[in-house]
Amino acid sequence: MENQSKEFILQLEKSERLRQSIRAVSLEMESATLLMQSSLLLVHQSRPVPEVLEKAKVQIDVLKGLFHRLAEILQECRGQYYRYHGDWRSETQMVVSKLAFMHWLETGNLLMHKEAEEKLGLDSSEFFLDIEDYLIGICFMSNELPRYVVNRVIAEDYDFTIKVVKFLRDLYVAFRMLNLRNDFLRKKFDGIKYDLTKVEEVYYNVKIRGLITSGDSSQDLGMQT
Amino acid sequence: MENQSKEFILQLEKSERLRQSIRAVSLEMESATLLMQSSLLLVHQSRPVPEVLEKAKVQIDVLKGLFHRLAEILQECRGQYYRYHGDWRSETQMVVSKLAFMHWLETGNLLMHKEAEEKLGLDSSEFFLDIEDYLIGICFMSNELPRYVVNRVIAEDYDFTIKVVKFLRDLYVAFRMLNLRNDFLRKKFDGIKYDLTKVEEVYYNVKIRGLITSGDSSQDLGMQT
Amino acid sequence: MENQSKEFILQLEKSERLRQSIRAVSLEMESATLLMQSSLLLVHQSRPVPEVLEKAKVQIDVLKGLFHRLAEILQECRGQYYRYHGDWRSETQMVVSKLAFMHWLETGNLLMHKEAEEKLGLDSSEFFLDIEDYLIGICFMSNELPRYVVNRVIAEDYDFTIKVVKFLRDLYVAFRMLNLRNDFLRKKFDGIKYDLTKVEEVYYNVKIRGLITSGDSSQDLGMQT
Amino acid sequence: MENQSKEFILQLEKSERLRQSIRAVSLEMESATLLMQSSLLLVHQSRPVPEVLEKAKVQIDVLKGLFHRLAEILQECRGQYYRYHGDWRSETQMVVSKLAFMHWLETGNLLMHKEAEEKLGLDSSEFFLDIEDYLIGICFMSNELPRYVVNRVIAEDYDFTIKVVKFLRDLYVAFRMLNLRNDFLRKKFDGIKYDLTKVEEVYYNVKIRGLITSGDSSQDLGMQT
Repeated sequence: MENQSKEFILQLEKSERLRQSIRAVSLEMESATLLMQSSLLLVHQSRPVPEVLEKAKVQIDVLKGLFHRLAEILQECRGQYYRYHGDWRSETQMVVSKLAFMHWLETGNLLMHKEAEEKLGLDSSEFFLDIEDYLIGICFMSNELPRYVVNRVIAEDYDFTIKVVKFLRDLYVAFRMLNLRNDFLRKKFDGIKYDLTKVEEVYYNVKIRGLITSGDSSQDLGMQT
Repeated sequence: MENQSKEFILQLEKSERLRQSIRAVSLEMESATLLMQSSLLLVHQSRPVPEVLEKAKVQIDVLKGLFHRLAEILQECRGQYYRYHGDWRSETQMVVSKLAFMHWLETGNLLMHKEAEEKLGLDSSEFFLDIEDYLIGICFMSNELPRYVVNRVIAEDYDFTIKVVKFLRDLYVAFRMLNLRNDFLRKKFDGIKYDLTKVEEVYYNVKIRGLITSGDSSQDLGMQT
Repeated sequence: MENQSKEFILQLEKSERLRQSIRAVSLEMESATLLMQSSLLLVHQSRPVPEVLEKAKVQIDVLKGLFHRLAEILQECRGQYYRYHGDWRSETQMVVSKLAFMHWLETGNLLMHKEAEEKLGLDSSEFFLDIEDYLIGICFMSNELPRYVVNRVIAEDYDFTIKVVKFLRDLYVAFRMLNLRNDFLRKKFDGIKYDLTKVEEVYYNVKIRGLITSGDSSQDLGMQT
Repeated sequence: MENQSKEFILQLEKSERLRQSIRAVSLEMESATLLMQSSLLLVHQSRPVPEVLEKAKVQIDVLKGLFHRLAEILQECRGQYYRYHGDWRSETQMVVSKLAFMHWLETGNLLMHKEAEEKLGLDSSEFFLDIEDYLIGICFMSNELPRYVVNRVIAEDYDFTIKVVKFLRDLYVAFRMLNLRNDFLRKKFDGIKYDLTKVEEVYYNVKIRGLITSGDSSQDLGMQT
């Protein structure tokens, strides 16, 4: 009984030490993401997008460094990625949501799972971006869009509403295809539908007042969905 | 054991007596704040602001007197401000929120921490306004603004919406800078984002209908902050 | 976006399929454990221990087969033991608690972690018995002892109480050494103290009535551990 | 607004830093108290009291050092003892309960508030032992006694029961005199009544069987309460 206890103490302490290192890293992740978020906020106040992105991008390297540290910590316990996953997953979801928002501001496209992994330097088969974390991050990103589209209209950028409606419709269709079974994800996915409805209302308000200038855009929008 | 008990009885009774005096004062604070609030409510019904403020200001002197009484009670137990803090803090937060709302109605600016202390006669280093109480009070004040802006639009005061959007954006940015760790404060701070989003939506509705008269204001809003 | 969705659908479906297979196995585990439990219950009714154990042991082979099936399922997703762990862990804890009770009835000793793994055929490094699951199982086993000791006294087997007190004291000391950080485990461990106190009370009642026959046993109890 | 934010950031960070230092110390307090507790446990197994106490006392110096560190941290924020009190109070209550149990084992008397302060080196007027924390610690100590008395009887030390009954009766009367208003303390105090009842039952069982040897003790006990 005593020998067994001694062995357990060693193992439980090792596990506790790992957990503490992981938590220290995820605290730093949270902090870097908040800094990124503070920069991104200015996009709602019509600051030029490139300027806003430049500042926010500084944190990507910080985050890359943190994920590298996390990967190193996890090498001490091969095959136990999911044992400690709960200690960094919500922070990772936040990181994905900010990266996806930045990517969309820059390219108008959805940040792919592979691209998110590349940005964070997650290239090994041992340490990767869990698909559910990626999907939840994308849902959080979608939640930013209604506010953003309202502020674009305030800044008299009416045509922009079309882009957002298109993007969210595609995203909604893509998520629906996934036929999600996970309850948490399903609930977050319902949020996309809510965001889409709000964005469509903004577009309808703009459209009905004849504020859309680009001739064929509305038909275009009508056809695709 | 008996001697100790006797001493404890004295101390516990003293502490209980203090607590009762403090509670009596904070009950009166609550009552004065409610009177202030009843006057301020009329601002939503488009009563002239100076008239509304005049009535509400009467209570400031009452509150000043009450904080003076509280300071006197706390002099009996130097260095124990935070021991009894829980017994007046939520009342103080309410006081701050009303004072800040009045100050904003009058000047268009945020009531500073120092200014709030001055208004309440808190000049000593022994009795002061706790920073977290001040910040929570400001969050409560922000919660009043969406309703107020809606009522300004009802009163056809469309241009006013710009001021509120600007004020809340500045407030939101200032709070974000604080990098709050206190969970309660963080939650209240999320409320500011919600208020801001609602106020932006009101502005957007007014804007889209061409109801804003001041020519350059929208660009102004876009550029600044 | 579409390619990514297709890949996700494949992966999410694979994961869902795995989860369903695992749940099917853990349902069968639960069922086998209940059968084991029904046999073991008779021990409280003073049925001869060897007879009771013989019936209960039949289920060990069934469980061994189920753990083998689980191991095979998990080979499809190497390194993801902890991803699905939540789907079989409470069943495993129950299995451990029954095995440990049987082992104690048979030998008077604590079932060691290694012994539990052997009984269940968990010999590989890929599929093993998580230490925390083992410890929680032992806590559940301890919860059975107060009732058992009461029933031994009813059956006029007074001296038996000493054995249980000794066993639980050793177990309690061993657990305390572990310095547990996990909240759930700590709470379960508090249960052992409660069991020990109850068992000590039974022993005390028997002792005080002069029902203990073995002359030196009480001193023995006092001196040791 | 910006200047105010800068000042707030400094103050909030200072407060957060203080809180983290305090938490680090109270974590070490918890750990030292657990070590003390592990040693004290052996008293239930009839290990000689002096031997048990000697081992447990090693931790008193550790705790004294930790309270000294805490006092130093609090000197950075004079007059704010109660601001951070919540971060070390439950640990302090545990410390008091163990010290009081040890003192009682050694002397048969209640550890006085002043004595507890001395043991922990709390001699200044700035850093002291809060009376409520002391009282709650004493309640926790009382909770240990029913189990201890049962184990004394198991070890055939019957006369000891009288001492415990007397001690708990005195303690109960002393607490009743305090006329407690604090809900948490009152609830803990109800626990003393429960402990007393259990201890009285043990005494009654021992008495009724004629196991008490000291002639006049029972009358003695009868007179005093």
